Amino acid sequence: MVENTMNKTALPREMLVRLPKYLRYLREFALHNKTKVSSGELAEKLGITASQVRRDLGQIGVNGHNGFGYIVSDVHRHIAEQLGLYSVQRVAILGAGNIGHALTSHRMFQSRGFELVGVYDHDPSLVGTVIGGFTVQDISSLAALPPEKRPAIAILAVSSESANKVARYVASLGIRGILNFCYTDIDVAGQVLVENIHIDDSLMMLSYQLNQL
Amino acid sequence: MVENTMNKTALPREMLVRLPKYLRYLREFALHNKTKVSSGELAEKLGITASQVRRDLGQIGVNGHNGFGYIVSDVHRHIAEQLGLYSVQRVAILGAGNIGHALTSHRMFQSRGFELVGVYDHDPSLVGTVIGGFTVQDISSLAALPPEKRPAIAILAVSSESANKVARYVASLGIRGILNFCYTDIDVAGQVLVENIHIDDSLMMLSYQLNQL
Repeated sequence: MVENTMNKTALPREMLVRLPKYLRYLREFALHNKTKVSSGELAEKLGITASQVRRDLGQIGVNGHNGFGYIVSDVHRHIAEQLGLYSVQRVAILGAGNIGHALTSHRMFQSRGFELVGVYDHDPSLVGTVIGGFTVQDISSLAALPPEKRPAIAILAVSSESANKVARYVASLGIRGILNFCYTDIDVAGQVLVENIHIDDSLMMLSYQLNQL
Repeated sequence: MVENTMNKTALPREMLVRLPKYLRYLREFALHNKTKVSSGELAEKLGITASQVRRDLGQIGVNGHNGFGYIVSDVHRHIAEQLGLYSVQRVAILGAGNIGHALTSHRMFQSRGFELVGVYDHDPSLVGTVIGGFTVQDISSLAALPPEKRPAIAILAVSSESANKVARYVASLGIRGILNFCYTDIDVAGQVLVENIHIDDSLMMLSYQLNQL
């Protein structure tokens, strides 16, 4: 049995959240044929100090060269390795409603090194329909997938009411990660790693901050 | 001119992120006709200590009663007030692609006290189509809205390439808040409050944590 987030990660979470940001800027640099980058440039992009950048990158084994900086491709490769992006992770989308539909059509997974294995729902009016080349399958058919085809990550885009039921089903199949879009917290701690995307919460926090102006 | 996040909020961000969570559980309690709640029960839901709950709620002016706890409706009202949910905030969705389409159809805004004023895009093949009762309008028509109809919050669901151009347009219209779904950071600090929803980042962080197991 695996454990819930926070505890078992080797990197502190406040640093972990920065890794995808570094990656994003490094990719942009590479697209603009920039081969070198200084800690100061990265610091400005991330809104942190240059010494924090050097500590972050040092912690994952990347060191800059005095008066030269970092080699963009080098840093990019190290971070992608840390994030496990060289070993393709299989993802499944559970829920073919508005959000599930958008995520399936979005194709962000393929371009970031994830492989979408399928889209699942239990609503008979959705099962059998086609979204972005994927035929929506009944959620119970996830159990029939051979081990090598099983997803490592389930993206939960079902109704809040069925979120925890589906999460327990996910855990029972040995899926270890959940990206949760439901307006509820997932109560399968100790069994599955959960990252939450609570759009409503972000909107409310923005509302609060606007009221403080 | 208003300022960027973090600095001007009266509540520390680590507490602010908990307010929508409190609200979510209090709403569930109310739906189950639960009128009283202890700091211990709330603490368990949020995964924090009971004394932290008492500090959080004390900070927004809600005090529990010894041996009785908190009145659910009372705490709910105080938090909703803090989050500005009694004054309806107008939101506009910019971008009628997959994510914009899903958010428009989702109707989460209405049910959380936000009012969707419209959906905007600049793609001629999308302008004029209807999503969930809203006709997609050209993004330039935002400028023509009379002041009382203008959104306070723009939800950015355009392509990464046009994100900053659209953000600057948003700022030029006097819109003060952006909920950013684009795979890029918004560079209008000092003019607009930005909350980011980077789905890719969350997926990568989950990937990292799975690799650590």
